[in-house]
Amino acid sequence: MNTFNVKAYGTPSKDEDLNEMQIERREVSPTDIEIEILFCGVCHSDLHTARNDWGGTKYPSVPGHEIVGRITKIGSEVTKFKVGDLAGVGCLVDSCKECESCKQDLEQYCLNGSTGTYNGTDQHLQGHTFGGYSEKVVVTESFCLKIPENLDLKAVAPLLCAGITTWSPLKHWNVKEGSKVAVVGLGGLGHMAIKLAKGLGAEVTLFSRSPDKIQDALNLGADSVVISTYENEMESAKGKFDLIIDTVPYDHDINPYINTLNISGTLVLVGFIGKMEDALFTPPMILGRRSVAGSVIGGIKETQEMLDFCGEHNILPEIEMINMQDINEAYERMLKSEVRYRFVIDMQSLKD
Amino acid sequence: MNTFNVKAYGTPSKDEDLNEMQIERREVSPTDIEIEILFCGVCHSDLHTARNDWGGTKYPSVPGHEIVGRITKIGSEVTKFKVGDLAGVGCLVDSCKECESCKQDLEQYCLNGSTGTYNGTDQHLQGHTFGGYSEKVVVTESFCLKIPENLDLKAVAPLLCAGITTWSPLKHWNVKEGSKVAVVGLGGLGHMAIKLAKGLGAEVTLFSRSPDKIQDALNLGADSVVISTYENEMESAKGKFDLIIDTVPYDHDINPYINTLNISGTLVLVGFIGKMEDALFTPPMILGRRSVAGSVIGGIKETQEMLDFCGEHNILPEIEMINMQDINEAYERMLKSEVRYRFVIDMQSLKD
Ligand SMILES: [Zn+2]
Ligand SMILES: [Zn+2]
Ligand SMILES: [Zn+2]
Ligand SMILES: [Zn+2]
Repeated sequence: MNTFNVKAYGTPSKDEDLNEMQIERREVSPTDIEIEILFCGVCHSDLHTARNDWGGTKYPSVPGHEIVGRITKIGSEVTKFKVGDLAGVGCLVDSCKECESCKQDLEQYCLNGSTGTYNGTDQHLQGHTFGGYSEKVVVTESFCLKIPENLDLKAVAPLLCAGITTWSPLKHWNVKEGSKVAVVGLGGLGHMAIKLAKGLGAEVTLFSRSPDKIQDALNLGADSVVISTYENEMESAKGKFDLIIDTVPYDHDINPYINTLNISGTLVLVGFIGKMEDALFTPPMILGRRSVAGSVIGGIKETQEMLDFCGEHNILPEIEMINMQDINEAYERMLKSEVRYRFVIDMQSLKD
Repeated sequence: MNTFNVKAYGTPSKDEDLNEMQIERREVSPTDIEIEILFCGVCHSDLHTARNDWGGTKYPSVPGHEIVGRITKIGSEVTKFKVGDLAGVGCLVDSCKECESCKQDLEQYCLNGSTGTYNGTDQHLQGHTFGGYSEKVVVTESFCLKIPENLDLKAVAPLLCAGITTWSPLKHWNVKEGSKVAVVGLGGLGHMAIKLAKGLGAEVTLFSRSPDKIQDALNLGADSVVISTYENEMESAKGKFDLIIDTVPYDHDINPYINTLNISGTLVLVGFIGKMEDALFTPPMILGRRSVAGSVIGGIKETQEMLDFCGEHNILPEIEMINMQDINEAYERMLKSEVRYRFVIDMQSLKD
């Protein structure tokens, strides 16, 4: 398979900063699309992968899975896109397309293992996949998304991970006009959960540990904020929510939130991958048919629906633009939760 | 309100055996039904309440919430039943009828607190409710069930708790022809879960810790048994089940079972009320949209549907008949799991 070199930003090992490097991209096959990357969002997974926080990182590592750009080349069998169109690529670039999950448009749960946009096993070249911190990416048509033309392109990028990660559970658990939704944690995921749930017509509450988030949450569209460290506020939220989207990325006690679920309500974990050390207390679950669930990103069809929905309702994340060269500093600020609410890299800066 | 005395079997304190005593029943009000109790199933809750294992037991305590009998008197406004009909009473005898749960026929989740058949706050007389270990019971018509005439009456009794407790989650989580269901634990609840899931057309697997349950499970209709202490069997069950009904009544590690759920599958706890000390491992939940939920008994409408279904499919529990005077010994045998699978008291013996 023929390849070409592109400039990228990545790291050769877990202890080194990200820096400029060259990577290979394949020439488009008949079903591929080549995208010149214009903007790339910065996800917490990017930094955890770069630093091997979860283990399993393959080096050199080039993160980035919130990719938007313009199509520069298409394969001979591509039908949905043409050169010059905008296109997006999210967290996945391939899956088996044959398993029960893939047949149901749930590529994120592919039983044979879907291919991550970075750090996945490349299905076309030797080695592993490289993400969107690069000039160009080549992706099979069926994993590319159409971008509504009316949206501010740079702000679209974070929809491709933070957006779909919160949209998928909102839809799966049937949030609609009048649903009561709560969001735990106000970061990249949490602020999108508020906006998307509001867009779907839900009444939205933010759980936060600190009162200084109240005004931010209201500005983002939340109807109310419950300070989770105030017992009286937690008590009066008891039995209230149909769905809770828990975006907290570290271990925490979910029992107090379970108590705020309505009968048959569900708390969905989307942020914390690991062991929850606090003992799960079953009475509120059994005596109220409450559930604790997990969810990861979303399928391609669902991602397109989310993008179209955001186009119709003009829903976009709050972003702060950075240059590619600022990425290491940006990671430090993310670790301190100093970003409101998502960094997006202007990929023009990589050319400078 | 006028009352009358009936013979019953109960205990005056947590440390005493059950013995014969007198209790009061109300005379039927216009909407009430008086039932001469013919058979009463013996549930684990009976013994835990009698012995105050969960706290909160009011004494004297008269257990029993798997009640079947024949109607001896009806109030002037009763329309669904007539004197001489068979009738059943399960775990509930009253609820608020006005809250969101009650309006949805989910009396078991009444937001104002439904009234348990025993140890509940009596809505008609002073004090607390007395269960089915007695000659007669008086219950409001809307909480009484019709018994299919074709079923062996004495075996119907356990359907009213063990049956509905497993039926409700099977229906709520949409088990149907071809669903893959697993059951954890083979006791009163577990053996009903197998029979009801089979009746609904599911492929049913029992998880058991001991190979000596294999033949029993197959006899009850299970398609297969997975020995949960055999790693290779657990490994080959990975990702298999749409729904797991976990009937185990003590703390246990649910993580190995979560791994055997299919994408979007749910493990429902119906047996253990307490703290689950083993840390919940979130990756299989997040990466497979799997849920852990709880469920308790069922609503009155749903209980009637279950009874009608059992009538059509001739589904009944396996029972061992005892006399009322054998109850204390029966409790000891239940604690040692020596009953296959439910004791039913022949209430004729209380008259002797
Ligand atoms: Zn991400
Ligand atoms: Zn697949
Ligand atoms: Zn019971
Ligand atoms: Zn109610």
